Amino acid sequence: MNKKYLFTPGPTTVPPECLLAMAQPIIHHRTSEYREIFAEVRENLKYVFRTENEVLTFTSSGTGAMEAAVANFLSGGDRVLVVKSGKFGERFAEIAAAYGVEVTAIDVEWGKAVNPEMIKSHLGNDVKVVYTALCETSTGAANDIQRIAEVVSASPAVLVVDAISGLGAMELETDKWGVDVVVSGSQKGLMIPPGLSFVSVGEKAWGLVEKSDLPKYYFDFRKVKKAQEQSDSAFTPAISLIIALRESLRMLKEEGIENVISRHGRLAEATREAMKSLGLELFAGVPADAVTAVKVPAGMDGSAFVKHLRGKGVSIAGGQAHLKGKIFRLAHLGYMDMFDILQMISAVEVGLNEVGYEVELGNGVRAAEEVFLEKETPFKFLA
Amino acid sequence: MNKKYLFTPGPTTVPPECLLAMAQPIIHHRTSEYREIFAEVRENLKYVFRTENEVLTFTSSGTGAMEAAVANFLSGGDRVLVVKSGKFGERFAEIAAAYGVEVTAIDVEWGKAVNPEMIKSHLGNDVKVVYTALCETSTGAANDIQRIAEVVSASPAVLVVDAISGLGAMELETDKWGVDVVVSGSQKGLMIPPGLSFVSVGEKAWGLVEKSDLPKYYFDFRKVKKAQEQSDSAFTPAISLIIALRESLRMLKEEGIENVISRHGRLAEATREAMKSLGLELFAGVPADAVTAVKVPAGMDGSAFVKHLRGKGVSIAGGQAHLKGKIFRLAHLGYMDMFDILQMISAVEVGLNEVGYEVELGNGVRAAEEVFLEKETPFKFLA
Repeated sequence: MNKKYLFTPGPTTVPPECLLAMAQPIIHHRTSEYREIFAEVRENLKYVFRTENEVLTFTSSGTGAMEAAVANFLSGGDRVLVVKSGKFGERFAEIAAAYGVEVTAIDVEWGKAVNPEMIKSHLGNDVKVVYTALCETSTGAANDIQRIAEVVSASPAVLVVDAISGLGAMELETDKWGVDVVVSGSQKGLMIPPGLSFVSVGEKAWGLVEKSDLPKYYFDFRKVKKAQEQSDSAFTPAISLIIALRESLRMLKEEGIENVISRHGRLAEATREAMKSLGLELFAGVPADAVTAVKVPAGMDGSAFVKHLRGKGVSIAGGQAHLKGKIFRLAHLGYMDMFDILQMISAVEVGLNEVGYEVELGNGVRAAEEVFLEKETPFKFLA
Repeated sequence: MNKKYLFTPGPTTVPPECLLAMAQPIIHHRTSEYREIFAEVRENLKYVFRTENEVLTFTSSGTGAMEAAVANFLSGGDRVLVVKSGKFGERFAEIAAAYGVEVTAIDVEWGKAVNPEMIKSHLGNDVKVVYTALCETSTGAANDIQRIAEVVSASPAVLVVDAISGLGAMELETDKWGVDVVVSGSQKGLMIPPGLSFVSVGEKAWGLVEKSDLPKYYFDFRKVKKAQEQSDSAFTPAISLIIALRESLRMLKEEGIENVISRHGRLAEATREAMKSLGLELFAGVPADAVTAVKVPAGMDGSAFVKHLRGKGVSIAGGQAHLKGKIFRLAHLGYMDMFDILQMISAVEVGLNEVGYEVELGNGVRAAEEVFLEKETPFKFLA
């Protein structure tokens, strides 16, 4: 037997309902049958994105949507603010630079949240777009998007939030908070395989689209929006992934997005308490509810630990770039509930002991169970 | 019962082996397990593309790969030749224009093949790239890529061939003929759902990549090549589609690419003979072996015919742009053999009679059967 357990922040486990949807005979995309499916997907994406705006859907990795959120809003020589607090913040800066856009970086120590006042102090009339993340996947740190949106919406700039790992795991009131643009991907909280990416675009941001002179074709927001408004696709879509997405969106809607978010809150808290009970330290200053980054204790080889668990069929994530070997990351994201977290924590306990870092067996699991039995995270949308 | 029959030039029918591969639990892409799968896919793509060069693999529609073949080879103000003989030739011209590239168009009447001498007469020292198609999917016309490659390779220009519908259906000796770049997609001859695109890049073309100053990030050939050479991915790949592709490539290799191509030749010939026997006229001057375009006879409403068949669960393709209602297109592409063609032809016979265009029932099927029983298309690779 070679059973696999997936606790990575993307891809996340795909529910059997979605896997089986992909195993159905392929249908053509220029048919009323497909248009009906896509119409439902469009509506339910708006529900999950907490927006009335069209959620543009692309066949690409999340990085494609990040690039689209540069190429469609800007012109050569424009200035943008990029919060660089991890690998994906750096990616926005790299993409902008590749397009000849002037980047003012707000360098934040990896693992820390950006201070919204820092953003405020950098905003001037010439900043066109501010790029930041809800959850910086590489560090497990959460940013205060509500406050950042307050600050940015009072300026002429447009706010682009990378919610690739945060969507469906953490509170994100796109329209209510005034978040102009939300970028996401299919293989995280949306629970299907990688291959689709998404960008919701508000009115202020459409104003930039009209003025942008950077080259684009496949990712052209205007083309894609025009087609989507007929529940059609500008280019041949990844049909089987859209059909899987219909299933996962139905599941999220059935559970209710408020409940989905509060479930992630509980799973995250249980994971954090478990790690602390094992004597481990959390890496992020303000930890995100999508993924928990844990510091590798002194003397332990973090990469070897991740590799060891992988050899047992258990995938967790290591650190990226200069954090390689220094942290490991546990995702509580997507198709996961209480017992999956307990399984994940027990795998960490077993693995740590096997690589020679002794922790008290069962202690992490106990701490997590206590969270599940005693606590309820009050849900904020309803407050 | 609501059974579906798919005779469109993409998506094409996906073999159950590939559908079931997609229904397997998702695996992580930064694992040795995935790298082994991708290593096999890379090798077998080279086999199908008839090249020793790396076949760069992207998560996108075919249009994304077309754009990549503009953004990676050119700089602002460069001049290119584009053969405009259908919708997809026009798309290359649109993409190039979007990137500020100067386009010299060779306008060819839709349905006709381009005369290679026309290309020759337009080649000068300042033409960087020539864009044309093996099979122009919108018209079903084939171009003489072998001769075009002779002409272009004698010049400083690089030849980019759109083989999105032609790959795996028509002879294309990439390396032997000196074709620099081949662009394709997953949902045609490769028999899996849409969502992956491919670009094979030869040495002469890499020379252009080094000099190109057009912006790109997600489609950056150098990034993607560097990752692929480790059987790794620059960005999260569409894992389930890659796993399906492993299955379909195994099937193509097992059959042998020479046999795959000659099978398509027979299926195409049978389809053409059937249509002629029904008194219908072929649209393309030099018909391609991937898809047959048929003229809608005077007095018949072509769009209504396509729609009528769709209502019976049978998908064929209509005409695009100004050919809407004027042609219909029958694909003999991918996971199809003799009996699928006979089924398709019988559907056309039934449908034509039902919309009031009387043809002699069984006559098309008879003509196709005769082709299958009597003829063998000699295979040219082996000659």
